[in-house]
Amino acid sequence: MTHPAPPAPLAPGDFRVADLSLAEAGRHQIRLAEREMPGLTALREEYAESQPLAGARIAGSLHMTVQTAVLIETLTSLGAQVRWASCNIFSTQDEAAAAVVVGAGTPEAPAGVPVYAWKGESLEEYWWCTDRIFRFPAAEGVPAGPTLILDDGGDATMYLLEGAAAEDAGGVPADGEDDPAEVRAFRAQLRTALAELEAAGETGRFSRIAAQLEGVSEETTTGVNRLYRLAEAGNLPFPAVNVNDSVTKSKFDNRYGIRHSLPDGLNRATDVLIGGKVALVIGYGDVGKGATEAMAGQGARVLVSEVDPICALQAVMDGYQVVTTAEAVPEADFVITTTGNTRVLTVEDLQHLKPGAIVGNVGHFDDEIDLAGLAKLPGVSAVEIKPQVHEWTIPAAEGTGRETTSILVLSEGRLLNLGNATGHPSFVMSASFANQVMAQIELHSGETQYEAGVHRLPKVLDEKVARLHLPALGARLSELTKEQAEYIGVDVAGPYKPEHYRY
Amino acid sequence: MTHPAPPAPLAPGDFRVADLSLAEAGRHQIRLAEREMPGLTALREEYAESQPLAGARIAGSLHMTVQTAVLIETLTSLGAQVRWASCNIFSTQDEAAAAVVVGAGTPEAPAGVPVYAWKGESLEEYWWCTDRIFRFPAAEGVPAGPTLILDDGGDATMYLLEGAAAEDAGGVPADGEDDPAEVRAFRAQLRTALAELEAAGETGRFSRIAAQLEGVSEETTTGVNRLYRLAEAGNLPFPAVNVNDSVTKSKFDNRYGIRHSLPDGLNRATDVLIGGKVALVIGYGDVGKGATEAMAGQGARVLVSEVDPICALQAVMDGYQVVTTAEAVPEADFVITTTGNTRVLTVEDLQHLKPGAIVGNVGHFDDEIDLAGLAKLPGVSAVEIKPQVHEWTIPAAEGTGRETTSILVLSEGRLLNLGNATGHPSFVMSASFANQVMAQIELHSGETQYEAGVHRLPKVLDEKVARLHLPALGARLSELTKEQAEYIGVDVAGPYKPEHYRY
Amino acid sequence: MTHPAPPAPLAPGDFRVADLSLAEAGRHQIRLAEREMPGLTALREEYAESQPLAGARIAGSLHMTVQTAVLIETLTSLGAQVRWASCNIFSTQDEAAAAVVVGAGTPEAPAGVPVYAWKGESLEEYWWCTDRIFRFPAAEGVPAGPTLILDDGGDATMYLLEGAAAEDAGGVPADGEDDPAEVRAFRAQLRTALAELEAAGETGRFSRIAAQLEGVSEETTTGVNRLYRLAEAGNLPFPAVNVNDSVTKSKFDNRYGIRHSLPDGLNRATDVLIGGKVALVIGYGDVGKGATEAMAGQGARVLVSEVDPICALQAVMDGYQVVTTAEAVPEADFVITTTGNTRVLTVEDLQHLKPGAIVGNVGHFDDEIDLAGLAKLPGVSAVEIKPQVHEWTIPAAEGTGRETTSILVLSEGRLLNLGNATGHPSFVMSASFANQVMAQIELHSGETQYEAGVHRLPKVLDEKVARLHLPALGARLSELTKEQAEYIGVDVAGPYKPEHYRY
Amino acid sequence: MTHPAPPAPLAPGDFRVADLSLAEAGRHQIRLAEREMPGLTALREEYAESQPLAGARIAGSLHMTVQTAVLIETLTSLGAQVRWASCNIFSTQDEAAAAVVVGAGTPEAPAGVPVYAWKGESLEEYWWCTDRIFRFPAAEGVPAGPTLILDDGGDATMYLLEGAAAEDAGGVPADGEDDPAEVRAFRAQLRTALAELEAAGETGRFSRIAAQLEGVSEETTTGVNRLYRLAEAGNLPFPAVNVNDSVTKSKFDNRYGIRHSLPDGLNRATDVLIGGKVALVIGYGDVGKGATEAMAGQGARVLVSEVDPICALQAVMDGYQVVTTAEAVPEADFVITTTGNTRVLTVEDLQHLKPGAIVGNVGHFDDEIDLAGLAKLPGVSAVEIKPQVHEWTIPAAEGTGRETTSILVLSEGRLLNLGNATGHPSFVMSASFANQVMAQIELHSGETQYEAGVHRLPKVLDEKVARLHLPALGARLSELTKEQAEYIGVDVAGPYKPEHYRY
Repeated sequence: MTHPAPPAPLAPGDFRVADLSLAEAGRHQIRLAEREMPGLTALREEYAESQPLAGARIAGSLHMTVQTAVLIETLTSLGAQVRWASCNIFSTQDEAAAAVVVGAGTPEAPAGVPVYAWKGESLEEYWWCTDRIFRFPAAEGVPAGPTLILDDGGDATMYLLEGAAAEDAGGVPADGEDDPAEVRAFRAQLRTALAELEAAGETGRFSRIAAQLEGVSEETTTGVNRLYRLAEAGNLPFPAVNVNDSVTKSKFDNRYGIRHSLPDGLNRATDVLIGGKVALVIGYGDVGKGATEAMAGQGARVLVSEVDPICALQAVMDGYQVVTTAEAVPEADFVITTTGNTRVLTVEDLQHLKPGAIVGNVGHFDDEIDLAGLAKLPGVSAVEIKPQVHEWTIPAAEGTGRETTSILVLSEGRLLNLGNATGHPSFVMSASFANQVMAQIELHSGETQYEAGVHRLPKVLDEKVARLHLPALGARLSELTKEQAEYIGVDVAGPYKPEHYRY
Repeated sequence: MTHPAPPAPLAPGDFRVADLSLAEAGRHQIRLAEREMPGLTALREEYAESQPLAGARIAGSLHMTVQTAVLIETLTSLGAQVRWASCNIFSTQDEAAAAVVVGAGTPEAPAGVPVYAWKGESLEEYWWCTDRIFRFPAAEGVPAGPTLILDDGGDATMYLLEGAAAEDAGGVPADGEDDPAEVRAFRAQLRTALAELEAAGETGRFSRIAAQLEGVSEETTTGVNRLYRLAEAGNLPFPAVNVNDSVTKSKFDNRYGIRHSLPDGLNRATDVLIGGKVALVIGYGDVGKGATEAMAGQGARVLVSEVDPICALQAVMDGYQVVTTAEAVPEADFVITTTGNTRVLTVEDLQHLKPGAIVGNVGHFDDEIDLAGLAKLPGVSAVEIKPQVHEWTIPAAEGTGRETTSILVLSEGRLLNLGNATGHPSFVMSASFANQVMAQIELHSGETQYEAGVHRLPKVLDEKVARLHLPALGARLSELTKEQAEYIGVDVAGPYKPEHYRY
Repeated sequence: MTHPAPPAPLAPGDFRVADLSLAEAGRHQIRLAEREMPGLTALREEYAESQPLAGARIAGSLHMTVQTAVLIETLTSLGAQVRWASCNIFSTQDEAAAAVVVGAGTPEAPAGVPVYAWKGESLEEYWWCTDRIFRFPAAEGVPAGPTLILDDGGDATMYLLEGAAAEDAGGVPADGEDDPAEVRAFRAQLRTALAELEAAGETGRFSRIAAQLEGVSEETTTGVNRLYRLAEAGNLPFPAVNVNDSVTKSKFDNRYGIRHSLPDGLNRATDVLIGGKVALVIGYGDVGKGATEAMAGQGARVLVSEVDPICALQAVMDGYQVVTTAEAVPEADFVITTTGNTRVLTVEDLQHLKPGAIVGNVGHFDDEIDLAGLAKLPGVSAVEIKPQVHEWTIPAAEGTGRETTSILVLSEGRLLNLGNATGHPSFVMSASFANQVMAQIELHSGETQYEAGVHRLPKVLDEKVARLHLPALGARLSELTKEQAEYIGVDVAGPYKPEHYRY
Repeated sequence: MTHPAPPAPLAPGDFRVADLSLAEAGRHQIRLAEREMPGLTALREEYAESQPLAGARIAGSLHMTVQTAVLIETLTSLGAQVRWASCNIFSTQDEAAAAVVVGAGTPEAPAGVPVYAWKGESLEEYWWCTDRIFRFPAAEGVPAGPTLILDDGGDATMYLLEGAAAEDAGGVPADGEDDPAEVRAFRAQLRTALAELEAAGETGRFSRIAAQLEGVSEETTTGVNRLYRLAEAGNLPFPAVNVNDSVTKSKFDNRYGIRHSLPDGLNRATDVLIGGKVALVIGYGDVGKGATEAMAGQGARVLVSEVDPICALQAVMDGYQVVTTAEAVPEADFVITTTGNTRVLTVEDLQHLKPGAIVGNVGHFDDEIDLAGLAKLPGVSAVEIKPQVHEWTIPAAEGTGRETTSILVLSEGRLLNLGNATGHPSFVMSASFANQVMAQIELHSGETQYEAGVHRLPKVLDEKVARLHLPALGARLSELTKEQAEYIGVDVAGPYKPEHYRY
């Protein structure tokens, strides 16, 4: 399968990546990844002719990895125009970014997709890249800006909506004294953009884009939570498809992806034996379930910390000890946060860790582990052992019998499976991204009329995604007889379960 | 904790069980079971004073086991009057039934609850027992019949609604030529009951009960499916609470209960090694997931057969081979059906089995395995090896190289975990039954107004059930800080997840 | 396959079992068990003609179960004469014993093998039964007594050697004040036997049997340890084959047998949920490894207690927490002893248990749990909940915050998998017993000359046992090429590994 | 813990590594590794004063990794002089080699140990490096050459013995027509060395070293097999300690090391999802057991191929399907060889693989997979995807319906866990290497007199190694009472098991 040719060479300067000479290496990896992404390749075949995304202009904000490259090129092969940024400052694979930019062209004459992403962006650069994906130029009969957002974590959506709000309010709010660096960088970028637009005579552009948007499809729990809160507050002016809660996303990517990429990240970062060690997993949602399975599968003894009694009871019934975080930290060799919540590993917790303990996050944002708080402690120091691996020496908690303790922190508290390894493997992303593609088609085609608000994909599409991935795993499905389908009141072709079914 | 004293001695003859002299042995077991049912004992304490079921008259149809005895006595300790039948002809534990009948009385002067159940009922006896649970006598200011149904599989609800329908239609439909024995026995009982009521001048009693009913709470997937179809067809005149789909039921009882009781039933029935053998599990829903985990946990190699692509993909990702039933039967040492559907193991499948293959069902009804069809094959014979274990000798399928094959069938195709062992362990049933008790309270208290139709319990009650069971397992919950609760937009006390969350 | 016809009807009274009318039920189970014992049925076929045990007179002391029945009838079908007792007072399955006695005859005219065994023997009866297996009558050219012992735990061997020692010493040692009841009963029986022999003019019979014995084959770790100590002390006057340490015994029966029969025994005894509970397994040898796997496979959290650092390190690397027994008992829901050592669960430990804790032994003797010590504590009481299940109420240890605690003790501290269930499944015993049969052939045939002392079977026979069991499990072996065999310096037909290889 | 200072700066040119400027990075990693190697650090402390290796001159041939650096510096801290080469052309970690060379010195003035190793040696360079480790210079009262060999795979020992044989025979055998490149390179180096020695007037040096050698300690199954064959043929003139068969080596390094490093190598090489895929593991010895556990722990379905019926039966009982290699290859996504045998994956097998199948070896030599044979097939091509990952395009076998297939081959068939990742983690190597250190002490101290031939370490040292590693994993050992030790006939301090015990 070859990548699709875009309609025209890229405008000079309409991209920013680390090094275009990496494109060939990236193309190699993309080609191997396509073999592992049967969902996306099946969709390319199915829709090769009908081009359901013709006319769509998609602003994408999602880890710029090899797998995402296959997603991007699936979107363009279905007719879409695409601009892309990463949703994490460390997660870009530079060779993938280069290959997508080069496309059918050459490093000298790139003819692919405008990508703005590289590994190791600063916070300022991060928001600048995010700004760029909205810069689809106006053309004959086509207004400027995207018609769709494909989001991961909600940053692109937030940037658009806050931009529109600032246009309404006549300016960006001032920074508070305690505002974190992330927020300051975000606001600074917004101020710059509004100034630029004003200078260019395009005042109101954020609001115009929000008004013309067909919708957003969102990848993660964290982003979906933001969307639900926007919708409840009446602040979501377009439809959003919650891709995260497709079964073939939340129960596959979140769980089986982490099962694969968590130990991968730990191993590449530290080479430390997992077997026989004590791992504390904070959170027993889908991500936490995958994390415990991975660690237990390597022979670690896993302790689970939870706030939700149902998830806690599941952990116990699955054979894990459920304790509070505070109880567990003194004996943990590994601490993995998986919650999507804030400061679930506190400064106090960190000070109780044993020397050599390894700390990492596979939840969403980098504030699951309170490194910001830790950095403020007097006497703290951190050295980089190798990229994305820091040894912090910190004052130990009283009663530990230690003056200081020294711990290894992975990816500065950001997603370690992306920062220390290469993220989820292609096969898992194929399921998630097949949902994304179908969500974009749903929003663009207009066949179903989605109101402003948050929607899930119809179950039958969820089942379709699963169905596309079974043959590659050698699985053969049995079929309902007509008698059996009637007996349980479903169609022979599905959907097979009631909406509330939990899998 | 002692069982509650009922208001008065039982009317002579107002029960039918195997042998009241078993009551002491039953009481022993009930006492031990109470230690394993922290959910029910906690509810007894919480509601000892407020008596939220005072005035409720509950008709119960659910396996009459030791655990159900603890449920029944929890209901009466909260103020309810109760009448009980089993929902399966083989599942009654006679000593439990005896103990519930005797209650605080003696075998000579029983003072407990009217129970109609014994192990090994005929189909005719089964429906007669079901009829009895509706026979609450009228009293001063209290009309005859129950105000609530507590159902498992929907038989009690069906009996009431078909009775009412027959009253409307002026009679019970005639039997068709191919109608199974179950249906004929059901109709025969209805005809008898209608005749009795007419003779007693109580014509229209079924309809009157349906009209006065506060609702039904239903235990199983099968029963819930029936209710949804009734509701869709406009034939459900009262509210129903779907207890099955409480997370603490469907993902605990269905899964962890089967994980325990499936190998228990196989072992007691056959004493055959599970390790190293090939087990075919048909269906990978919650019950199927528990079944595969149990068999794999004993070292069997598990093959899974599925029709739903999402469940099939889960099975593959969990490491199991997914094949069609027809492909798998020739190499299977064990075949376990878990679907709740009909004839998922056909006569043809059975004829392909190896000599010595063991066949059993933990789904719902006894037609998952087409034993009725098998019995009609020429040359088939079956001998009882021991109670609930039959060796069938049947003509082998062509191409197997065998003239005949001989297979072991457990519990005549009914629930083998109940027929060959003692069903789910108390702890698991404590979660399910705590949901049942709270459902009955919800329906009776009137605090929430439930419309006719099918409802699930509020998530916060689901979480409460989980919370009640954690201390007994030594689990300690972490707590959200106020900051964290706000961050994810929930209350510190829960519920913690959106409605669509799948656990 | 039919059972073999013995040469003549049994002499009247030359057996003692519970009830011969159980023979038909027993024969049914034996027939089903033969399907699960491919090792033994293959040996019957292989040796049908050559009758390698012709002339052998075997005194057997091993749990008189259905599987042992298949062993006994394999021995007789190879030409041996056999007399049998159980090696445990609770482990006899009465229907199996009856079927073996009846053999090809009828309950009225039994024509099988003289068996002395029933479920629930007293200690006195136990040793009387053991005495009987040595009572092969003298015949034309054949002296009285056996030529071989087939032993489990070493009781038969000990009885013979102590008998011979008493003959030498002129009497049985007197009982000491603290001697346990077992020892007293043993000596009492020896005294009776010596008196009987003297009365019958057969003084010196024990010594004569010891002198004529071709050898003993021993089943268990415990019995083997006894043999090694006898040999070291110069007190083993005949060869002994250590069957226990064949790989296909110690790593199959001990491990996979317990994996199956431990949860089976727990379930039949108590019906208590294993999942989510805390299980303390004392000992991480082969039995302990099987026990932990079984409990973990049901979702329990397993704690391991060990004295051997290598086994302890294995447990840790397998993901289990290794703690001292004293640390673990307060939080254990189940305590399982697997050591073959004495008082590994002390009175003090028992007093720290939670109410409802379940205690059982799958090691060897009943003194792993110090119930004898416990019974001497003031204020202790025990009630039988059901056969082989006792609820002990005992004073709780200080600091537990409890006055008393109440625990469930299974099979009075004897092997719970035999006392509360039916022991190891047939398939596992087929491997162990195929080793036994080949050991008896080795000792009887004289092809290899075994010195007095303890020997293991040649590795090639061990591999043969494995090979006999693979087809029934659908396993297909690859074969070494000649080039490969030479490369690693073995024969294409095996043995494949050096003697010290550990599997 | 700082590394030990050697007595003097390294002679200029007396080492060859990739780049001394990597030393600082290597020292960082060595420091972190020391935290994970409690066995070696404990031995450093125990023997700091007594210096039991004073006077020993050790020629080491073992993968030159970070962990080996800790081993080397443990040996020198106990008084030894050491020279080192890697035993594999791809396994050197260049920064570790640099740090060991630099030692307490600087890159400009290295003062460590003479190391000859770099990642990516040619065959010629490999044997040149091996030659160098024997070049201890003569000194006052000290003859030239080593007194001990520390070997992995037996190459150093073979080089010495073949050198001595060539000295005896007056020359190196001529190359045969079909001799593989490895053999030719080996002989070429020998010829060069003999010529050099002759030129330097040191004829007979190989024989003199062999005569003065105190012994060799060997790390692997493969090397041990070679030693046993040498000893049987009377060609082993000095004692050899079989470190591989210490329990704390063969059942830890082989099993738990591979469990960790196999998926690590696969992930770093390919980023392909393991879960849900089919993995064929060839061989179910200790390495195979670890490999299956790793793959199953990630949710793969594992097929096992075996020639040994006992290991095959273990695989079945552990729940894996046992099939022939030929049957399994068409459906395998991963094929992992673990046997230590030759051509266990044939050209024919490789041609049956699916496109995208991933093939790798964790056995010993690179001929487990017949890549040499494959390379000779007409029409074969191979491209390097990234270092140590090659995509081979080969003619597909008839009947597959494919013209060609394309497979990924890792590390050119050499140990993928070393070639594609960093080998076993430090903790596991700590156990193996603690055995090595104790073996060297045993051979050097002369306390026990070891004859020429192959020996295993006493069990009590094996138990000591385990004991040294338990505290770091939080494990607490129970202790035998005196009564218990007597009961089972052992010393309270161990050893606890008979020699034949298998763990």
